Amino acid sequence: MTIEECIKKIRPLDGDAVRAAQERQDGLLKPRGSLGELEGLSVRIAGITGQIRNTLSKKIHLLFGSDHGICDEGVSGSPQYFTRVLMELYAGPAGNLPEGQCGINVLCRRAGADLRLYDLGVKGLTPRPGIDSRHRLMPEGTANFAKTRAMPPETARAAVELGVHLVEEVKGEGYQIIGAGEVGMGNTAPAAACIMAALDRPDPGLVGRGGGLTDTAFANKKRVIVEALRLHHPAPDDPLEILSCVGGLDIAAMTGVYLGAAVCRLPVILDGAISAAAALLASRLAPGAKDFMIASHRSAEPAYAAAAEAMGLVPLLTLRMRLGEGTGCPLAMQLVDDALAVMNEMGSFSEVSLESGYRGELKA
Amino acid sequence: MTIEECIKKIRPLDGDAVRAAQERQDGLLKPRGSLGELEGLSVRIAGITGQIRNTLSKKIHLLFGSDHGICDEGVSGSPQYFTRVLMELYAGPAGNLPEGQCGINVLCRRAGADLRLYDLGVKGLTPRPGIDSRHRLMPEGTANFAKTRAMPPETARAAVELGVHLVEEVKGEGYQIIGAGEVGMGNTAPAAACIMAALDRPDPGLVGRGGGLTDTAFANKKRVIVEALRLHHPAPDDPLEILSCVGGLDIAAMTGVYLGAAVCRLPVILDGAISAAAALLASRLAPGAKDFMIASHRSAEPAYAAAAEAMGLVPLLTLRMRLGEGTGCPLAMQLVDDALAVMNEMGSFSEVSLESGYRGELKA
Repeated sequence: MTIEECIKKIRPLDGDAVRAAQERQDGLLKPRGSLGELEGLSVRIAGITGQIRNTLSKKIHLLFGSDHGICDEGVSGSPQYFTRVLMELYAGPAGNLPEGQCGINVLCRRAGADLRLYDLGVKGLTPRPGIDSRHRLMPEGTANFAKTRAMPPETARAAVELGVHLVEEVKGEGYQIIGAGEVGMGNTAPAAACIMAALDRPDPGLVGRGGGLTDTAFANKKRVIVEALRLHHPAPDDPLEILSCVGGLDIAAMTGVYLGAAVCRLPVILDGAISAAAALLASRLAPGAKDFMIASHRSAEPAYAAAAEAMGLVPLLTLRMRLGEGTGCPLAMQLVDDALAVMNEMGSFSEVSLESGYRGELKA
Repeated sequence: MTIEECIKKIRPLDGDAVRAAQERQDGLLKPRGSLGELEGLSVRIAGITGQIRNTLSKKIHLLFGSDHGICDEGVSGSPQYFTRVLMELYAGPAGNLPEGQCGINVLCRRAGADLRLYDLGVKGLTPRPGIDSRHRLMPEGTANFAKTRAMPPETARAAVELGVHLVEEVKGEGYQIIGAGEVGMGNTAPAAACIMAALDRPDPGLVGRGGGLTDTAFANKKRVIVEALRLHHPAPDDPLEILSCVGGLDIAAMTGVYLGAAVCRLPVILDGAISAAAALLASRLAPGAKDFMIASHRSAEPAYAAAAEAMGLVPLLTLRMRLGEGTGCPLAMQLVDDALAVMNEMGSFSEVSLESGYRGELKA
C-alpha cells in the first residue's frame, strides 16, 4: 500500500462505540472519571474496535534494528557495532545465554507479547534464525546526515511503506495490539533532528544525552544536529523529506507502523524519543493516526516532551527509562489490560439497584 | 506490639544485599541505570528481603472502611451512607452482582492479589461474610473535627497498633507484598488536614476537591480544614496527636500498616492522598519506614504532592485517578513484578562474553 493510499484509508474512531463505551463507564460503580486514564483508554479502544468490551490478548512487539551514519560525528556513547551485537542477543542463543535475555525479551514475556525482530540495515549482521532480514533497505545503515542526506527520498518512502506492510501482516495473523521499538546506536540524534525539523524549532535545548554522553560529547551532539538542520533545512510540513534528510530507517519504519496501525485499526503503543519522532511524523501525514496511539512512558529526552506536547499525548508511566528497544510498550500493554478489565468486569449502578432486593440505595 | 516497640524494631535496608543487587543490575545487558525505576525497585526490594532475586507472588490488599464526622460540614460530594454501601459491594454478592465488582475487586483480580476488608467504624454496617468486623473502633465513625477531636488519643493509638498487628497477621500467612486502601466519604478532608498539620503548612491551596465538589462546597471545605487546624493546632512533630485531632480511623490504621510493613520487612504500596497522609505520619514516627514504601500513582490532590515531595517519593504512574480504595496498589504490584523479572531473568555481560565462542564483543 502506498503512503497516499494508506492516508486515504484511515477512518476516525467509531463515534457510536465511543459514546456507548463512555455511557457504560459513567454507569460503573465509581464516581465518573475517577479511574482517569484507565477509563479514557477503554473508551478509545472501543472507538478503535467498534465494540464496547474488548480483550486484546494477542500482543506483538516489533523491534527495528538499523545503523545510523551520524555516529561518525561522535554522537553516541557506545560503539556502533553494539547495534549488531544487541540484535544477536535479542534473537539468542548467544554466549551461554539459551534465549533472548535482554530487557525487551524479559518484559515482552511478562506482558505475554510476542517479539519480532527486523534488520533494516545493521552493519555486519548476517542472516540468522529469529531475525527477519528480508528488508535490509541500506545494508550499511544510513549516511552521515551531517554531510549528506541520511537516505534517498525513495528509501524513506520504502521504509514507511514497509512499516505499513508489516502491520498489515501481523493484523492478518490475528494480533490485536502492537508495540514498536528500535535499536541503533546514536539514534536519539536523528530522532531529535526529526522532531526539531517537524516542529520548526532548531533549539539545541531539545537535544538530549541519549544513552549517556560526556559534557563535551553532548555539546558536540547539539552542534552537529543544529548544523545539520541548517544544512538540509527540510520543510516542517514534509515528513518524508525530513526522514530523507535527517531521519533513520527505524524512525521511518515506525512512522509506517503508526500509519498502518490506524489503517488496520489496532491500538499501538509508543515508547521513548525515537517513537515520538515517528509518531509526530505519522500524525503530520495523517492527523487521525494519533487516535490509535497510546503513550507508554515519559522519556527523559527533551525532544520527547516537545513532540508529546505537540500531539497532546500524555504518557502513563514515569520511570526515568532510557533503554530503548521499546521497553515501555510491554509495560503499558498491561495497563491497557487493566483498563479493559475495568470496562469488562466492573459492575454498574443499574445492576446493583434494580433487582433481587438489594437494600443499598447507591443511586440516591 | 506497641508503637514504641514497633519503632524500635525497624531496621534499615540490608546494605550488603543492596550493594550486591546494584552490582548485578549494573552488569545486566543494558546501559547502567537505563531501566530507571525498575532497577531502583528491584534493588530496594533486595534490601528489604536480603536476597538479590525475589518473587513476590503472594500479594494482598488491605482495604479499610470508616466514616468521618467531618462529613457533617458538607466536605463530601457523596452522602455518607455510600461508605457502607461500597463496603457491602466490595464484599459481594449484592443486588444481582454475584461477586465484588468494584474497581478494587477487578484490579486486585488482575494483579493476582487477595483482597481483605476491614470495618473500622462504618455507620450501619452489620457483620457479613467477607468483612472483618472485629475492629470497629468507633462504630459511628470519627467525631466532627471542626468541633471536637476526631477521636480520643487512645483510639488513635489503638488504630495505629491495629494496622501493625494486621501486617503481622498477613506476614504470618505468607504474604510477600502489601497494598492498602480505604473507603470513607469525606476522607480527603482529614488526609489534607493531617498532611498540612505534619508539614506545618495550613495552606488552603493544599486542599483538593476529593471525589468531586461544587466551587462553593470546595471553598467551604478549605475553610473548614484551615479553621479546624487553628482550633486544634496539633504539634507538627506529634503524629498521634495529629491523628487524634484531625485524623481518621483509616488514616491511623494505614499509618500502622506502613510501620508494620517496615517491621515485618514487606514492601508496601501507597495509593493516593489518604495513604500519603498515613505514610507521612508513619515516616515521622519512624523515618526508616520510608524505605519499605512504593508510591504507585500521582494523585490529583495537592496535599499528595506536598507529602510525596516531603518524603522524596516519586510515583510510578500518572493516571489522573481519584477513586480511592487503594486502586493504584494492584497496578503498581504488576510493575514491581516487571522490575523483579528484569533482575531475575535478564542476562549479564559476563554470561555473554565469557563462554562458548560467542563472537560478539559487547564489553569491548
